[in-house]
Amino acid sequence: MAEKITPRDRDYNQWYQDVVRAAKLAETSPVRGSMVLPPNGYELWENMQRGLDGMFKATGHRNAYFPLFIPKSFLAREAAHVEGFAKECAVVTHYRLKEQDGDLIVDPEAELEEPLIVRPTSETIIWDTYARWIQSWRDLPLKLNQWANVVRWEMRTRLFLRTAEFLWQEGHTAHATEAEAVEETTTMLDVYARFAEEWMAMPVIKGVKTASERFPGAVDTYCIEALMQDGKALQAGTSHFLGQNFAKAFECTFQNQDNEQEYVWATSWGVSTRLIGALIMTHGDDQGVILPPKLAPIQVAIVPITRTNDDNEAVLDAAEEMRDSLTRAGYRVVLDDRDQYRPGWKFAQYEVEGVPVRLAVGPRDVKNGTAEMARRDTGEKKSVSAREIVPAIREALHDIQKALYDRAYAFRRDHTQVADSYDAFKAQVEEGGFVLMHWDGTAETEAKVKDETKATIRCVPFPGQFPGIDTAAAGTDPVSGQPSEQLVVYARAY
Amino acid sequence: MAEKITPRDRDYNQWYQDVVRAAKLAETSPVRGSMVLPPNGYELWENMQRGLDGMFKATGHRNAYFPLFIPKSFLAREAAHVEGFAKECAVVTHYRLKEQDGDLIVDPEAELEEPLIVRPTSETIIWDTYARWIQSWRDLPLKLNQWANVVRWEMRTRLFLRTAEFLWQEGHTAHATEAEAVEETTTMLDVYARFAEEWMAMPVIKGVKTASERFPGAVDTYCIEALMQDGKALQAGTSHFLGQNFAKAFECTFQNQDNEQEYVWATSWGVSTRLIGALIMTHGDDQGVILPPKLAPIQVAIVPITRTNDDNEAVLDAAEEMRDSLTRAGYRVVLDDRDQYRPGWKFAQYEVEGVPVRLAVGPRDVKNGTAEMARRDTGEKKSVSAREIVPAIREALHDIQKALYDRAYAFRRDHTQVADSYDAFKAQVEEGGFVLMHWDGTAETEAKVKDETKATIRCVPFPGQFPGIDTAAAGTDPVSGQPSEQLVVYARAY
Repeated sequence: MAEKITPRDRDYNQWYQDVVRAAKLAETSPVRGSMVLPPNGYELWENMQRGLDGMFKATGHRNAYFPLFIPKSFLAREAAHVEGFAKECAVVTHYRLKEQDGDLIVDPEAELEEPLIVRPTSETIIWDTYARWIQSWRDLPLKLNQWANVVRWEMRTRLFLRTAEFLWQEGHTAHATEAEAVEETTTMLDVYARFAEEWMAMPVIKGVKTASERFPGAVDTYCIEALMQDGKALQAGTSHFLGQNFAKAFECTFQNQDNEQEYVWATSWGVSTRLIGALIMTHGDDQGVILPPKLAPIQVAIVPITRTNDDNEAVLDAAEEMRDSLTRAGYRVVLDDRDQYRPGWKFAQYEVEGVPVRLAVGPRDVKNGTAEMARRDTGEKKSVSAREIVPAIREALHDIQKALYDRAYAFRRDHTQVADSYDAFKAQVEEGGFVLMHWDGTAETEAKVKDETKATIRCVPFPGQFPGIDTAAAGTDPVSGQPSEQLVVYARAY
Repeated sequence: MAEKITPRDRDYNQWYQDVVRAAKLAETSPVRGSMVLPPNGYELWENMQRGLDGMFKATGHRNAYFPLFIPKSFLAREAAHVEGFAKECAVVTHYRLKEQDGDLIVDPEAELEEPLIVRPTSETIIWDTYARWIQSWRDLPLKLNQWANVVRWEMRTRLFLRTAEFLWQEGHTAHATEAEAVEETTTMLDVYARFAEEWMAMPVIKGVKTASERFPGAVDTYCIEALMQDGKALQAGTSHFLGQNFAKAFECTFQNQDNEQEYVWATSWGVSTRLIGALIMTHGDDQGVILPPKLAPIQVAIVPITRTNDDNEAVLDAAEEMRDSLTRAGYRVVLDDRDQYRPGWKFAQYEVEGVPVRLAVGPRDVKNGTAEMARRDTGEKKSVSAREIVPAIREALHDIQKALYDRAYAFRRDHTQVADSYDAFKAQVEEGGFVLMHWDGTAETEAKVKDETKATIRCVPFPGQFPGIDTAAAGTDPVSGQPSEQLVVYARAY
């Protein structure tokens, strides 16, 4: 029996928790703030990794691995960086436990000379290394990516969205010129946007963060922002132009083609298991998760239906044949022939887990050479020919991927408003969704709006992303009455 | 210019360090005992992961992820386990740094209530989770694997072979019966042996560890042992039958089909980046690393050779065509058309890095429709037809993979001896290699031999692995004069 899921409109946060648990995507652990990712959740992450990794390699990046631990002194070298991360980090101070009076205690004699920080992000350890690797313009650009776990000691945690330990990738690149580094930053933002839209079926807005929301140590932080079904925004990925800040902090210079020493220009960019939370909240419904076909660990679940023992063999044969055809065609298929669960239980479980297509095969289907195909996203059922199962599945998966994107896009369009006055803005923020409003560019106005409405500037959007709305046109900030150069995207956010 | 490599016969340890550095596989970091893995090293690990992961999935395992941190109290629950790991572990005691008088210090007010251990291995956190997941025989078997980083506070570290942080996989399975768990343990040992032999081209001996070399908390530890070129053994993988030890420590029971509560039976098994060290020491030579084609990140390096600018275009066209044919055929190919390095420099670099096949294409080749193919393992060069480049490469890579295995197998055969007396044994141990000798089965004899010769029992071998030698025949332990049930494998080891 599938577990009970609270409807979204009754309690959205509870719905999220129920869905994550029922679909077996993640669970809390006895370690405060750390998740366990059961296979359903981890395999989804593996598929995301595969998609992203291919895009990273296609844009000229290679994978590498750097240490988990960062010496305390490294963190201190870049002023904004330490400010951003020192307040919530896991600190390793000792390297041994010992028994004392039957208890296991931290051995006071095994204290480290210098405490080590469990990486919250790896700029410092990587730029320390780059300073040794980079001598000449010949060594540039250096474009590496790391798949890793990181730890930030968050006090209020929520599965996928905010946890102490999470899995992510972090790209770190080094360039000879500012222009090349800026181009890398936007290239990778584009990669993230394409991944979100093409793989996750999740539309996103691209833009630049305001100074107050910038990554600690960055000159500019670019981001993609998605809109969840409860009207809150979610930052789904960031790409940072780091200028020469880390190169200066770690004395990373290179000899240019004119034989002069220059500091190296840097970028970093990352997405994390947070994307799984975004996926769930973009597509899920009151029955559970809905996974986009491109990322679903199981794309098709086949459930054989037998009423008498006599039917068994023919039904299983037909089901196996379908599974084999689909597997050969490259689809991820499960034939669920477990005896200990009834078909109805299996239907409910695959629904909760968000498997895009379910096929049911019973004795009558065998006779007719058919199967019953059910789409997870629309609930639509129809009979399909067993012979034509591969094209039928190809078409269904394609349609579902597109329908999910279209639905999410329509939702965002219907939940994006332009505020003409601060009063209108306040009401619109209460309704939820993106609210576009002119901004005078000051931190004061930004802070005032945040204080009074809990809405933050999600980004200064790149032009041309909101059909019919020219965000790049000048105007007046209704909060301060001061001139504004563009509309910015406000929302309450995760 | 390739870096200088110390010859093996002058200083084997220095050769190893030189080769690892020159081939850019790993380097030390400012964090004591932690490696940096540059792309060459990490991509090799990625290829190993891909090979192993496929074998794990084919044997019915799924991937999952568990927390990096383990509460101190968890470690204490299994007596042998805590004994094995408490003495060298990284301990997180605080969750914040703060500034004080311009210094960054560990905030004494941010001490954790319970210290956290950075996982040295994950049995405890996983069995705590399994105890919640497993209720009934329907939930069994549970067969999961995790790809992760782990930390053991080693005092004497060596790149790949022994580092504080390393990358590995750890399988953790739960079973309803002892027989099934034992079968899983040996199945996974077979998977490791097949991976070592078929992918790494590294012959291994399978066997059981003695009690003194058992994994802390295991009932039996099975292992694969390889022989390095300096005559030392290297433990390349282990598979543990854990009995009900962890199930009892974490109260993990299930209701069997007779409605009785029973403790669950367990296994765990792992291999790590240590395998890269084994690979290097199995195949490398005085010119650098030699990578087996199945694992090499670059299988074929194409170097265009142009003397005048006029040649450039035709040579590059021919080289690109070869690259494209080979890439389409599924090979991992690099066309190194960088201007800033000369062909001789590139030849030397690919040799050091162990790329299995190098193709050189010059103006005369273009005229003749050929390329010069050089094998890394034998140094053999021959002219091959550009039209027939795909079959030529297929054959060469296949031959190299086989030749590497055969050479390593012959080396091991030539460095395996049977000791008839303890005196002979001592001399044989000095010569290096595996020495088979009868053992009376006591820890006393084992310890005495270790003290006196530095040789340890690598394993009690499964029968039939040494052609012409019946290791399962009874005899007399020449050290103690006591009866022995079989020959065991002794060696000095990494």
